[in-house]
Amino acid sequence: MDLWLTEWQTPDLGLKTRVKKTLFAGQSDFQKVSVVDSEQFGRMLTLDGVFQTSVFDEYIYHEMIAHVPLYTHPNPKRVLVIGGGDGGSVREAVRHDSVESVEMVEIDGMVVDVCKQYLPEISAALIQNHPKLTLKIGDGIAHMRDAENRYDVIIVDCSDPIGPGEGLFTRGFFQDVHKALKADGLFVQQTESPFYHQSLIRKLHHDISGIFPITRLYLAQIPLYPGGTHSFTIGSKQYDPMTAPSRKPLFDTRYYNENIQKSAFVLPNMVRELLSGR
Amino acid sequence: MDLWLTEWQTPDLGLKTRVKKTLFAGQSDFQKVSVVDSEQFGRMLTLDGVFQTSVFDEYIYHEMIAHVPLYTHPNPKRVLVIGGGDGGSVREAVRHDSVESVEMVEIDGMVVDVCKQYLPEISAALIQNHPKLTLKIGDGIAHMRDAENRYDVIIVDCSDPIGPGEGLFTRGFFQDVHKALKADGLFVQQTESPFYHQSLIRKLHHDISGIFPITRLYLAQIPLYPGGTHSFTIGSKQYDPMTAPSRKPLFDTRYYNENIQKSAFVLPNMVRELLSGR
Repeated sequence: MDLWLTEWQTPDLGLKTRVKKTLFAGQSDFQKVSVVDSEQFGRMLTLDGVFQTSVFDEYIYHEMIAHVPLYTHPNPKRVLVIGGGDGGSVREAVRHDSVESVEMVEIDGMVVDVCKQYLPEISAALIQNHPKLTLKIGDGIAHMRDAENRYDVIIVDCSDPIGPGEGLFTRGFFQDVHKALKADGLFVQQTESPFYHQSLIRKLHHDISGIFPITRLYLAQIPLYPGGTHSFTIGSKQYDPMTAPSRKPLFDTRYYNENIQKSAFVLPNMVRELLSGR
Repeated sequence: MDLWLTEWQTPDLGLKTRVKKTLFAGQSDFQKVSVVDSEQFGRMLTLDGVFQTSVFDEYIYHEMIAHVPLYTHPNPKRVLVIGGGDGGSVREAVRHDSVESVEMVEIDGMVVDVCKQYLPEISAALIQNHPKLTLKIGDGIAHMRDAENRYDVIIVDCSDPIGPGEGLFTRGFFQDVHKALKADGLFVQQTESPFYHQSLIRKLHHDISGIFPITRLYLAQIPLYPGGTHSFTIGSKQYDPMTAPSRKPLFDTRYYNENIQKSAFVLPNMVRELLSGR
């Protein structure tokens, strides 16, 4: 049997990957959850048909969403991860010596359970109940509304701005993030492809700069995602990732290093112009 | 009619794009040549079914293959482009004030003719018979064999290492490139995806470092190409792109800038390790 799975990256563009086996397919209260084993990317999680993460390249996304903000802050102790049900972001966050606690708030318990079963490399910190980690299955938006002056770093590891992740892309949410951060805190959010989601990136950059004095976009090269280049946006109250001193990680990384920490913020002209609103 | 064109990026991975219209389909002495108009990438050239260039993102490839070596050399006057039948690389090369002559040797005259007709933005310098430009339809390998101590910068803008481009990926060819360059010359070659063509990149890096004292790999983010990240390898007799002073281009660019000139050489750990042979 010749099985193929296609992700529609845009209405006019599909990425089609050969599948060895479907490992899980279910419907949660929020979305369709599936895990397939593919030839190209190995085991992959999809939500509502959108490729979320794969054992082939997950390290890039997770290292880049976690280490860039955590090495921008000089001494992050208290970290919050919103979403990130596969566990990759918390796996990276707990590796920082300075980090004392990582709270994770994921809305969909099925995603956590399925990843623990089928993607153990990614969900390792969830499986081992890492001592720094507190997992709450619940609404990240409500959690943020109730938090005040509590976190050094917040990582918004959300899916696309359709479905359950939609409310994480609003100005009201960013205001709550600002309130939940300490006076020198910062946050990061995945903000999609600079080639295919330009109006979204421009809107988010505009909204975040209206609330945070320092707003910076950086890029990482992730073959699973549309166009192969993914953007992340940092909103920061005090520390500027462009001028923060580089620190060599004290643990092994596969993509991130102290030079990537800087070069990820060097933007091609077309991305610069996107942000300047020209 | 619902028309789709799929490129097989690997045997297990296809990029499928919606096509408005086929503008040209022919068979040259070397390969199948076609131009389609697609929804996502606009007009695109394909050779033997492989996506070569599109009006959507061609500027990234062409700026990066031309400006990075031309701004590494402090005063490039004489430039040779092997391949590059669409004309994008010579369009960029002639923009440098110091450059006095650009010779282009393309094996397939049909590619040149088709691009002049259907991709005029890319082939602009060919259409206008730019005064710095000499076009020769012929074999780049033979041309290189006959050249000695002649060029400041050589740009090998080849297709994949199957079909007519195959001989451009050999040690013997790199030895001829070395001979064709002046005593302080350098060359660049496109060397495919760091995610999907790792053994090729490792082999080329090894072969080029056996001949050139300075060998450097750099990356650019090109959504049309497999995995969205493309690598280029520079072999240089004297000037090191990692330490060459950055110069702000005196012309408009859409991707390249003087900071990208440096950051393109900052490699993720997995690429570093690939090159170190670990």
